[in-house]
Amino acid sequence: MTNKENTSSVDVTARLTQFIHDCQWDAVPEKVRHEAKRSLLNYFSVALSACFDPTIERAAQVLGRFSSAQQATVIGRGQRLDMLTAAALNTMASNVFDFDDTHIPTIIHPTAPVAPAVFALAETQRLSGIELLLGFILGVEAECRIGNAVSPGHYARGWHITSTCGVFGSAMATGKLLGLSAQQLVWAMGSASAQASGLVETLGTMAKSVSMGNAARNGMLSALLAQQDFDGPARPLEGVRGFLNVTADSPDCLSIVSELGSRWELLNNTYKPFPCGVVLNPVIEACLGLAKSPVLLKQGLDAIVRIELVGHPLLRQRTDRPNITTGRESQVSAQHAVAVALTRGRAGLAEFSDEAVSDPALRDLGRRVCFVEDASFAVEAATVKLHFESGEILCVEVDIARGARAKPLTDQDLENKVRTLCEYGGSGCHPEPLIDAVWTMDRASDVGQLMRLVAGQTQK
Amino acid sequence: MTNKENTSSVDVTARLTQFIHDCQWDAVPEKVRHEAKRSLLNYFSVALSACFDPTIERAAQVLGRFSSAQQATVIGRGQRLDMLTAAALNTMASNVFDFDDTHIPTIIHPTAPVAPAVFALAETQRLSGIELLLGFILGVEAECRIGNAVSPGHYARGWHITSTCGVFGSAMATGKLLGLSAQQLVWAMGSASAQASGLVETLGTMAKSVSMGNAARNGMLSALLAQQDFDGPARPLEGVRGFLNVTADSPDCLSIVSELGSRWELLNNTYKPFPCGVVLNPVIEACLGLAKSPVLLKQGLDAIVRIELVGHPLLRQRTDRPNITTGRESQVSAQHAVAVALTRGRAGLAEFSDEAVSDPALRDLGRRVCFVEDASFAVEAATVKLHFESGEILCVEVDIARGARAKPLTDQDLENKVRTLCEYGGSGCHPEPLIDAVWTMDRASDVGQLMRLVAGQTQK
Repeated sequence: MTNKENTSSVDVTARLTQFIHDCQWDAVPEKVRHEAKRSLLNYFSVALSACFDPTIERAAQVLGRFSSAQQATVIGRGQRLDMLTAAALNTMASNVFDFDDTHIPTIIHPTAPVAPAVFALAETQRLSGIELLLGFILGVEAECRIGNAVSPGHYARGWHITSTCGVFGSAMATGKLLGLSAQQLVWAMGSASAQASGLVETLGTMAKSVSMGNAARNGMLSALLAQQDFDGPARPLEGVRGFLNVTADSPDCLSIVSELGSRWELLNNTYKPFPCGVVLNPVIEACLGLAKSPVLLKQGLDAIVRIELVGHPLLRQRTDRPNITTGRESQVSAQHAVAVALTRGRAGLAEFSDEAVSDPALRDLGRRVCFVEDASFAVEAATVKLHFESGEILCVEVDIARGARAKPLTDQDLENKVRTLCEYGGSGCHPEPLIDAVWTMDRASDVGQLMRLVAGQTQK
Repeated sequence: MTNKENTSSVDVTARLTQFIHDCQWDAVPEKVRHEAKRSLLNYFSVALSACFDPTIERAAQVLGRFSSAQQATVIGRGQRLDMLTAAALNTMASNVFDFDDTHIPTIIHPTAPVAPAVFALAETQRLSGIELLLGFILGVEAECRIGNAVSPGHYARGWHITSTCGVFGSAMATGKLLGLSAQQLVWAMGSASAQASGLVETLGTMAKSVSMGNAARNGMLSALLAQQDFDGPARPLEGVRGFLNVTADSPDCLSIVSELGSRWELLNNTYKPFPCGVVLNPVIEACLGLAKSPVLLKQGLDAIVRIELVGHPLLRQRTDRPNITTGRESQVSAQHAVAVALTRGRAGLAEFSDEAVSDPALRDLGRRVCFVEDASFAVEAATVKLHFESGEILCVEVDIARGARAKPLTDQDLENKVRTLCEYGGSGCHPEPLIDAVWTMDRASDVGQLMRLVAGQTQK
């Protein structure tokens, strides 16, 4: 009980909510403001890519029956639903391909549960771009700090941390934008704590999207309830039977409130260049380089006898999957990733689809992959060696893969991601006005209008 | 890991859902059928009592904004909302006073998350009384068996077990009534597992009602999603990262499928005679007897110098609360319960309200209460001794309190509970037609019509 008593002695809920209540735009460093825009650009790119995915289609069909109004945009679908339902569907869409952002310390996908909430709200009440950005930044701050406190035990036990912590992020972002009092923010935390759910067991199935959508929806609901003085416990996070103690064995409670206002969790956010498990990043980057090599072009793929992947042991542990049957599995299969990158010279969503997986030529090339584990490699690094029947060896080393914290995607990369994924999703939206609107959103007086740019064609 | 591997080796999700899929009315014993009606009678009584409680008022105000249709009855409020929202509010109302039923092995309140779901569905598609009863019975069966498997560690850790297990009950009851295939029922379990939430920390606050309402709502949603082939994991319960292993340290997985079809969990259900913690039942029963005693009437309450409560140690541990300020606290205060029962000769909701608590005479009488712990007493037993200044002692012993499993409320008691609580709630509904309709519901061809009897006056 020592642990629980210690945890309960720090009033982190009160201190975190007071910070969220008090924090003003002036106090947010320029670097954080810019990272927020980058996260939102990445958010729109991934949401636009998945707007007609079967998971979203079926969820929209069922949830749409229970929508009360056409008040908020469902991204890319030419459809408006009530703000809770629209937020839920947009969260699902932005996360369904696991191509969204990653907060490195926790592996939370921070934007998916928070951005849909603040944009849906901005379509029902006039909000400036600055207001929305501040709400978003503070929501992510709450979400990731709570995630820090329960990591790594929480996810290891089986909690889908983006879902469980996302509900707090959505609640705090919404609560900030609704102008809740500090007491009401504590109550919003209470109703959010009652709704925190999501299991790792559901990954790889549609059911995962349910807890993701709920994180955004139920966080908003928590804030709306608190606005009506719907009360809750004083210590929903740190209480003896509160979220931290119940869902983690040794929560680091203090990390929730340490360096508030000077450390910003958005600066730990990263973006994926490829729709794959991040340990594959250096391998794919190397293979895309090799695909353009004159040696390979001359010899041809058939002349490769062995493809050696040298990397951190996690590379083999997480991605040694030779016999896969679905696009989803291909996202964590080194055999598929190597084969498709070498063969097609691309590694986008189309290359990790069910269609790509069914190509026998890729399966054949993948069989030639072998792993060399080397603990001296960082997870961001890998070496790929192609051994040809001629005896020639072609080798590419990647020290730090693009997308890693030390080598983030550039603004230009993120713009290109919007262009590519917008095209892929088939919504008919135009990427350029969207890209401009996100970069300049701190000058928008009614930021909800931005959603028109991602609405898509109205369906018959 | 031994434990987790053992747990995962039994395919309980498949076996439980197959049973739910296959089970027919003929296979349900008469005793279970009758207990279902008793549970439903108790359900309507408690829901009618709380329909205008502030928690329900505020929840209805917020949730009502997001209701898509007037398709299902919100009990007592003269209000119709979409079936998910109506079910959520009815679940909240039936549980908000903690006056609903109790499944003894788990302390789950089994009816609150399940009955609102099946009745809301019955207002949107024609269902016979037999169909609804079967769905309800199977939903409770799933909910309580899952609860058995995680008890007692789950609640002890801080999970609000009615909320966390209720979502499975609602999902299975709804899924049965929708005619889902066995595979779809597994998927419904998957989406339900992703939504299981609720913390003990929220008890005593409005936030508790959020997870209660969600249990009904999200269970229904899980079944509706599964109907559209929205898939989920194969082993949402027993998987290594599934509900059982994540929310309990040593789940008893096999109990979920042992004696399926021969042991029925509804037969472990009990009903409260008083709106209090069950350990107070024998004390209140004794005091209500004493209140009518000629000796006390002659001597008067002022002549009492000491009130001795002899009972199991849990009685003192759970209810020794001398200085309370709210009606909610009074439900677990022996000092208040004794004083109000002796003074007013009643122990209903009015006697455990904020108004009752503010009566200084009760506070004064309560100060004369003292406890004598005696481990030889069962929790259902207590002795109350009144010591008068004359030296006289008046004593009542209760061996088994009414409402205990060994001394259940009679059908007549439950009818009277409907009459009393219907009057208390102020909906203007008439209890007699409702009582008749519940007892005869297995003969109803369109059981959704029963909800007209609990609709209440339409609000202006």
